[in-house]
Amino acid sequence: MPGSEFTLIDRYFAAHELRRSDVMLGIGDDGALLVPPSGQQLVATMDTLVAGVHFFAAASPEGIGHKALAVNLSDLAAMGATPAWVTLALTLPEADEDWLKAFCRGLFALADRYEVQLIGGDTTRGPVTVITLQAQGFVPPGLALRRDGAKPGDSVYVTGTLGDAGLALAVALGRVGGGGGYQNYLQMRLERPEPRVAQGRALCEIASAAIDLSDGLAQDLGHILERSEAGARLEVDRLPLSPALLACLDQHAAITAALTSGDDYELCFTVPPERVERLEHLAMHWDCRCTRIGVITAEPGLQLLRADGSAFRLDRSGYDHFG
Amino acid sequence: MPGSEFTLIDRYFAAHELRRSDVMLGIGDDGALLVPPSGQQLVATMDTLVAGVHFFAAASPEGIGHKALAVNLSDLAAMGATPAWVTLALTLPEADEDWLKAFCRGLFALADRYEVQLIGGDTTRGPVTVITLQAQGFVPPGLALRRDGAKPGDSVYVTGTLGDAGLALAVALGRVGGGGGYQNYLQMRLERPEPRVAQGRALCEIASAAIDLSDGLAQDLGHILERSEAGARLEVDRLPLSPALLACLDQHAAITAALTSGDDYELCFTVPPERVERLEHLAMHWDCRCTRIGVITAEPGLQLLRADGSAFRLDRSGYDHFG
Repeated sequence: MPGSEFTLIDRYFAAHELRRSDVMLGIGDDGALLVPPSGQQLVATMDTLVAGVHFFAAASPEGIGHKALAVNLSDLAAMGATPAWVTLALTLPEADEDWLKAFCRGLFALADRYEVQLIGGDTTRGPVTVITLQAQGFVPPGLALRRDGAKPGDSVYVTGTLGDAGLALAVALGRVGGGGGYQNYLQMRLERPEPRVAQGRALCEIASAAIDLSDGLAQDLGHILERSEAGARLEVDRLPLSPALLACLDQHAAITAALTSGDDYELCFTVPPERVERLEHLAMHWDCRCTRIGVITAEPGLQLLRADGSAFRLDRSGYDHFG
Repeated sequence: MPGSEFTLIDRYFAAHELRRSDVMLGIGDDGALLVPPSGQQLVATMDTLVAGVHFFAAASPEGIGHKALAVNLSDLAAMGATPAWVTLALTLPEADEDWLKAFCRGLFALADRYEVQLIGGDTTRGPVTVITLQAQGFVPPGLALRRDGAKPGDSVYVTGTLGDAGLALAVALGRVGGGGGYQNYLQMRLERPEPRVAQGRALCEIASAAIDLSDGLAQDLGHILERSEAGARLEVDRLPLSPALLACLDQHAAITAALTSGDDYELCFTVPPERVERLEHLAMHWDCRCTRIGVITAEPGLQLLRADGSAFRLDRSGYDHFG
């Protein structure tokens, strides 16, 4: 490969300023040299975004930079970890400097907010843009949030509102009309998800299990249920829905979207009865909603109930979910 | 994305057996949970292979699995680190089970040999195969091999032989005839590079600087010189050349290949005069050659000398290097 322009890209990333004291050596050697904090455990996660699959090839590169990091920080949040270091693999059809500048702006703006340092990576030429980030953070021993800790009787909660990112995609694809005055809001929800890092950290001492919502509530909560060998009963009328979602979809479609559409990057977690009060007190100070949506059951499977006690019939809505 | 078949892939990776005691939680949650050894520093590296760029799309998937890990372990070796954990991002056009089985065979055979555990990753669909591995290892504080420690008077060494992988590629592309009885040897050198992990670890207390050879000796040694603010004088007739290289190329082309062709994944390192004897004693027990090829100079730049003291004129050879 003609390396020179791609070497320039590496220099571009290396030029960014943030330097954590636990990074002895960052970009520019065969590897980064790191000092893990003593007495902490390390959480590692990796997520890939492919142009045309996970984002529109013509999407704002600033948004892509933000999102590539956000989805990884969201995984760390779902483990209760404090983010620290990221490694970036960037495959690009060409070294487009404007695209890269904007991509970096989005990536580093989010990284700086969470004091996350880019410690290395690899830039390669390829026929399609593929962005892989590996992110690492710290968690006190024994306190990491896992998927396998939910117990019957635990309450099920979610942060934020559900279904917005999926609706934004459906609007962008013309599968749902309008979006009305909510276009900007919806676009932000799709392109600029906010990882729930502070919430995840706070939940370390409270939640019995957690996951981040990338594939939709029903599927992702399903992972908790599978790993915890339990079931859940959700009261679907309690699902937190945004004004945008309620404006664009009828009630049944809105609930379906909240259950099945992906890319929201909210947290879903379970809380034992004796810690519910502590959670609800804590969550009053959060910058996002925190909603109790159901309960873990000994009986396996996911039960969906309306407020009147009738079963909610889940059929896939008129648009596919993203991701 | 229709997730089911890709979920199967994840299970495929999770089924592999090796379990390190420092991995509290591997594949199957939002992130892996790791316990770094106390008092050690962490080395992190990441490398991407793109089909059609870094390997032939039709290449042996077992070889691709091996190589994707080997190039990362080679980076760890160049830092003097003991490898421990890897994270894998795999983008594939389709979930081809035979391909995957063979890929895993190659990856895990090498991983098991070095007690490296796959701790997580992401599998996505995309128009082209892209493989990104992030690898981490441990190194005692202050002992990591870096690029910036070479001093005038230090001897320059390389492991193994140089130019074989580039020759293998040139033969495969029909740019160089024959390969004769060396076809198998050359193919192994291209597809199954052996990371110099033991050598890297041993060099921690001996070498003043190190790098692995992925882009060719001249370019990679150039990185050491740049970071160390020094130059080097190489005696090109000392470059370690394999019988295969000498059989296929005339002397000038062979030396040129050794200087410029990539993908060898040998180590290049520098040793202060007072540690040369210790190195040479140690290297007698290595399973690869270790050859002194020159000396670091205060004067910047790379001087190339023949045995008779005349300058070696480096012009790019008849085939491009790989990678």
